[in-house]
Amino acid sequence: MTDTPLSYLPPPAAGIAALADAVHFNADGLVACIAQQHDTGEVLMMAWMNRQAVEETLATGRVCYFSRSRQGLWRKGETSGQVQRLVELRLDCDGDTLLALVDQLGVACHTGRRNCFFRAIRGEELAVIAEPLMDPAALYGEAHKGHSHG
Amino acid sequence: MTDTPLSYLPPPAAGIAALADAVHFNADGLVACIAQQHDTGEVLMMAWMNRQAVEETLATGRVCYFSRSRQGLWRKGETSGQVQRLVELRLDCDGDTLLALVDQLGVACHTGRRNCFFRAIRGEELAVIAEPLMDPAALYGEAHKGHSHG
Repeated sequence: MTDTPLSYLPPPAAGIAALADAVHFNADGLVACIAQQHDTGEVLMMAWMNRQAVEETLATGRVCYFSRSRQGLWRKGETSGQVQRLVELRLDCDGDTLLALVDQLGVACHTGRRNCFFRAIRGEELAVIAEPLMDPAALYGEAHKGHSHG
Repeated sequence: MTDTPLSYLPPPAAGIAALADAVHFNADGLVACIAQQHDTGEVLMMAWMNRQAVEETLATGRVCYFSRSRQGLWRKGETSGQVQRLVELRLDCDGDTLLALVDQLGVACHTGRRNCFFRAIRGEELAVIAEPLMDPAALYGEAHKGHSHG
């Protein structure tokens, strides 16, 4: 739950607006964002952002998504403590996908795994190929059972 | 344009079905797929697959997307020669995003860049932070100007 001080230096408001203006948000006002651990290259998760989430992420250096199930801003780690610090936010050629280079504290996945991509084919089955590093109950507590946002 | 022999060993049909059955395709019948270079960790691109594309990718070991603009299967590299060989296809916790570990021949981006995420904030502007490695005209030819699928 430690909220370490930011070393992130926010860009000027004009820079934030320049990126946000170049994003092609979909019909729901959202853009896909891939989170990648900046130093190891591990792909941690994919989630969605609306314009406000893009702007808040860039302004604060703490990654904020838009939860489609809750229909609201989802500051990664607000419940679980597993925050993502922004290193750089990049936009793709078509303007419809963001790549967030982050520093992930603890685990990215609500199952307690470091990343969300832990299922792959082994023989005739879809197998679990990575084990949890943390207990989901410890991340969210009994009160948050079934809550899948960290 | 070299079509090198596959070392990929396709899973049995039951394994392919097990993964495809676990995917939660969206209202358009699509699932997001992130392509990552398997050895360097570079995130190359994000595109979409329908069930047929998922199955073909797994059966052939050559990555096949679904083009939303063309509304048809898009065998990566069919025009440009810049094919993606599959190493492993992983599914995330929610079943709505795939991570394809691939071996990308040449460049992934239709602009001739290695990956699609080449724009980021520098000062007050959205800047281009990577240069093309190949000439898009050489990738697609004059006849394919404006064609953005490789």
